[in-house]
Amino acid sequence: MNEETPLPPPEEAERASIEPPEDSKAIRPEPGDLFERNAVDLNVLRELEGENILVAGQFSFEQVCELCKLAAMLEKLEIWPYHPLDGKIFVTAFFEASTRTRTSFESAILRLDGKVISIADGRTTGQAKGESLADIGEMFNGYADCVIMRHTDTDSTDQILQNLRIPLINAGNGSGEHPTQALADWFALLKWKPELALPPVDKSNKLNLGILGTPGSMRAVKSFLLMALLFHEHIDKVTVISEMADPFGEEVTEELRKGGIDYEVSNDVREHLPELDIIYMNSIAFLGDSYKNMDSRFKLDSSSPIKESAVILHPLARLDELDTSLDKTPHNLYFSQAHGAVFIRQALLMSVLGRLNALPQMMDLNQNPSD
Amino acid sequence: MNEETPLPPPEEAERASIEPPEDSKAIRPEPGDLFERNAVDLNVLRELEGENILVAGQFSFEQVCELCKLAAMLEKLEIWPYHPLDGKIFVTAFFEASTRTRTSFESAILRLDGKVISIADGRTTGQAKGESLADIGEMFNGYADCVIMRHTDTDSTDQILQNLRIPLINAGNGSGEHPTQALADWFALLKWKPELALPPVDKSNKLNLGILGTPGSMRAVKSFLLMALLFHEHIDKVTVISEMADPFGEEVTEELRKGGIDYEVSNDVREHLPELDIIYMNSIAFLGDSYKNMDSRFKLDSSSPIKESAVILHPLARLDELDTSLDKTPHNLYFSQAHGAVFIRQALLMSVLGRLNALPQMMDLNQNPSD
Amino acid sequence: MNEETPLPPPEEAERASIEPPEDSKAIRPEPGDLFERNAVDLNVLRELEGENILVAGQFSFEQVCELCKLAAMLEKLEIWPYHPLDGKIFVTAFFEASTRTRTSFESAILRLDGKVISIADGRTTGQAKGESLADIGEMFNGYADCVIMRHTDTDSTDQILQNLRIPLINAGNGSGEHPTQALADWFALLKWKPELALPPVDKSNKLNLGILGTPGSMRAVKSFLLMALLFHEHIDKVTVISEMADPFGEEVTEELRKGGIDYEVSNDVREHLPELDIIYMNSIAFLGDSYKNMDSRFKLDSSSPIKESAVILHPLARLDELDTSLDKTPHNLYFSQAHGAVFIRQALLMSVLGRLNALPQMMDLNQNPSD
Repeated sequence: MNEETPLPPPEEAERASIEPPEDSKAIRPEPGDLFERNAVDLNVLRELEGENILVAGQFSFEQVCELCKLAAMLEKLEIWPYHPLDGKIFVTAFFEASTRTRTSFESAILRLDGKVISIADGRTTGQAKGESLADIGEMFNGYADCVIMRHTDTDSTDQILQNLRIPLINAGNGSGEHPTQALADWFALLKWKPELALPPVDKSNKLNLGILGTPGSMRAVKSFLLMALLFHEHIDKVTVISEMADPFGEEVTEELRKGGIDYEVSNDVREHLPELDIIYMNSIAFLGDSYKNMDSRFKLDSSSPIKESAVILHPLARLDELDTSLDKTPHNLYFSQAHGAVFIRQALLMSVLGRLNALPQMMDLNQNPSD
Repeated sequence: MNEETPLPPPEEAERASIEPPEDSKAIRPEPGDLFERNAVDLNVLRELEGENILVAGQFSFEQVCELCKLAAMLEKLEIWPYHPLDGKIFVTAFFEASTRTRTSFESAILRLDGKVISIADGRTTGQAKGESLADIGEMFNGYADCVIMRHTDTDSTDQILQNLRIPLINAGNGSGEHPTQALADWFALLKWKPELALPPVDKSNKLNLGILGTPGSMRAVKSFLLMALLFHEHIDKVTVISEMADPFGEEVTEELRKGGIDYEVSNDVREHLPELDIIYMNSIAFLGDSYKNMDSRFKLDSSSPIKESAVILHPLARLDELDTSLDKTPHNLYFSQAHGAVFIRQALLMSVLGRLNALPQMMDLNQNPSD
Repeated sequence: MNEETPLPPPEEAERASIEPPEDSKAIRPEPGDLFERNAVDLNVLRELEGENILVAGQFSFEQVCELCKLAAMLEKLEIWPYHPLDGKIFVTAFFEASTRTRTSFESAILRLDGKVISIADGRTTGQAKGESLADIGEMFNGYADCVIMRHTDTDSTDQILQNLRIPLINAGNGSGEHPTQALADWFALLKWKPELALPPVDKSNKLNLGILGTPGSMRAVKSFLLMALLFHEHIDKVTVISEMADPFGEEVTEELRKGGIDYEVSNDVREHLPELDIIYMNSIAFLGDSYKNMDSRFKLDSSSPIKESAVILHPLARLDELDTSLDKTPHNLYFSQAHGAVFIRQALLMSVLGRLNALPQMMDLNQNPSD
């Protein structure tokens, strides 16, 4: 069905973008700035075919950059007429419920014409009655081509992989990692500053990265930080602002040391905010049905002393730690970050499922941008 | 894929209808009587493209009639080979669970070859943890082309529309409205009496409309009544039978007055039943997981003193307020009403999503019925 | 769309199978041994078109064998490019939650390019509020082409069939039956011993069938046993090992007597295990959210005195009644059984929905295997 579909001329395939409201100054970087700079190197992405996606640290710098470039292209162009995931079935197994992440993945799959078996609620599963994840993995082998799993247990990925022989994408495992959130984070940053995908020309322009949260115990911020190591040449310093005495945890500290990144820990938000170029806000942790909220010193609003050019990221959902007064300011990169999550997941799914060849003409167009 | 599909000859596209059981006298009006009378005016339906569907009162008489005519055509013909919603993604966001309405919409979407991201249970969402509907709306912008939402809060539609920039279809908001149910109600009535779509020829044939329920606080019956205003030339009187002192509520009373419709309130079912031509039965209100039931004076069964030619509507689900002894009588229009809900929603979705051009030959066939 | 799709040469359509891990000796019979032996007789399967699938006893020996042969073909070949269920909509109505069975059916439907409306949790339905199954059946008539239902009540199938006029597939009704599980069980056995589909050549090679469980009250084992009656010529004796005094129940005993099968009841596992050729393990019954577990005498592990050539079946999920030490032994047919469940359901759905003609060339290929 798909191979025979005549490709529409690229200009007709351009997506009608959902514009932000006119009174908003939120940043919506143009994706074209990223992928038109140079061609997507499909060979780098082919390395991901058939792989499990478990942790942020498994990606190379090149893989992250090429995924972001492909995602930018997918954000720009209508992809569904090419049916890149035709015939592929995905299980979205959310033993820990998360509508945001689940619907983001399901949107990515459906836009690519893949099919979804949805497990929205762990309470409906045999797992709730004591069935092992290993047995569930064995079952999924016969049902699907890829499993996307969220679970409250950090070792859930190890457990299901005892028997699972189709690719597993970790969509959050306990206090472990959330690697596709990190991809969404860096996709937003690369659209904002496409030069992050290149070696730094001017070393004096390095960025100060600040994190409000606890990388040692919060998976989204941990994965973000571990992926930041790939961009260490662009980073001057990492400042973690947390009420915890040791917010990193041993594993993350060790990685930062090996990565040669200068870092600092503080519990004083106001002192550090004015220096930061990128503020990763995650001072709230949703844990199953409850959450842990930091005290009010760790909240941000439009009166916070933020550098004029600084951008704020937030993995969402939020409560009041990130005030809506910031939504229409030029610090708001978090809506772009949320919006892009669908496209970076599309790029990842096409790579893992080995369907990068579905877009021959668009790729050619891109590989010879100067012709 | 869709444009190139050769259209099957219309006679082959005719749907194999699900016949009622032979011993049933329930009314199943033939949809052809409605749409073959005159052509569907697509220009009227194009007015709905990109619109939010929030309240019954937003529709014009012409829009309701053309939607019903298109729905009748969709009930008669197999539509899926034309793929009218190819590539379109819908979120069915049922923060208040409702399997009947959700599955009705999902059936409509799937029959048109659209795709569904299903949120069947608000308890699995960030909303349950305190995330704002405004943030959820921002998220949906990137995930889908249209949102169909049910919610326990009346102002939920206002809240999500703070950030939502793709069309919203209100599938029930608290004690507010349920406009697509009203469309399903009037679709059943227009199939039963196609002349309702035309100016009345004989003014003595006006219909008496009776409502068992409380329009002021029950969204389905409120939307039904507000849509009835469009058909005021065919209505002699509206009688509301309720145990509430003021069952209309101020807003509805004001609309009835402006609409010039004669109305009466009563709490005596038996006195009024024999006069009524159309009985809208909704003396039970499902509210989340519980419901409010009126006392036994407001129940109907096959021994109730109903006019021989009268028809009964009910938005369903029902408990014992509408006895199953009525199911196989010629008063039963409610099964036809339930059955048609899928097709009127198909007509609405095609209009809102701007995909009315997907059916050129069927339309031509219809626009020149005398050729 | 589907009819015009050029069929790929059969050799390209061959499925890349998910191989078991190298250290496993679990039995994964090659499906080709079953369907290449002789052609699928489509006329036998056409008898199932439009039928409700309610109990194991409704199938003929021929129907079970032809379903298994078609399933073996579907396990071997990529079926989705033929879109056999294009345009067909299924409701998976799991009023009793069961992720395993629901996802198995949904996988089968999606692989055949059908569409799914999923009700994963009865708590979100009107049924939870008191709506009758008869009314829900009436609703489904308009929404779908087939209903797959699981329910806690044994008479739920009777109830919904009061109004349902599209085919119903029983996916487990209380302590009633689970006929598609029985098909999956016998599909695994027929792949293991394809000669079961033929009259026995050597009567001395009959099989001893042992059941750990209570057919009288457990639907999976009951349906398995009732379907075993069709294979009575291959069975020497049925031994039921249970802690219940009368594990069969009157209905099953009567059927065994009529079927002329020799049977025995015992509560001593160790005495009988060494004689058994086929061990159906189901000494645990999941009942809604809880389960009933037999005592430790009824558990199996790799030290149990099992005949070297014996195979173990288990409908899964399991807790500790079937130890994982058996997983990598040649007794493990239960993983093959779980894996095949998707394909036997595909074969059944294509038959019930009347879409057996979707595969002309593959059928031709098969019907003349000697050309």
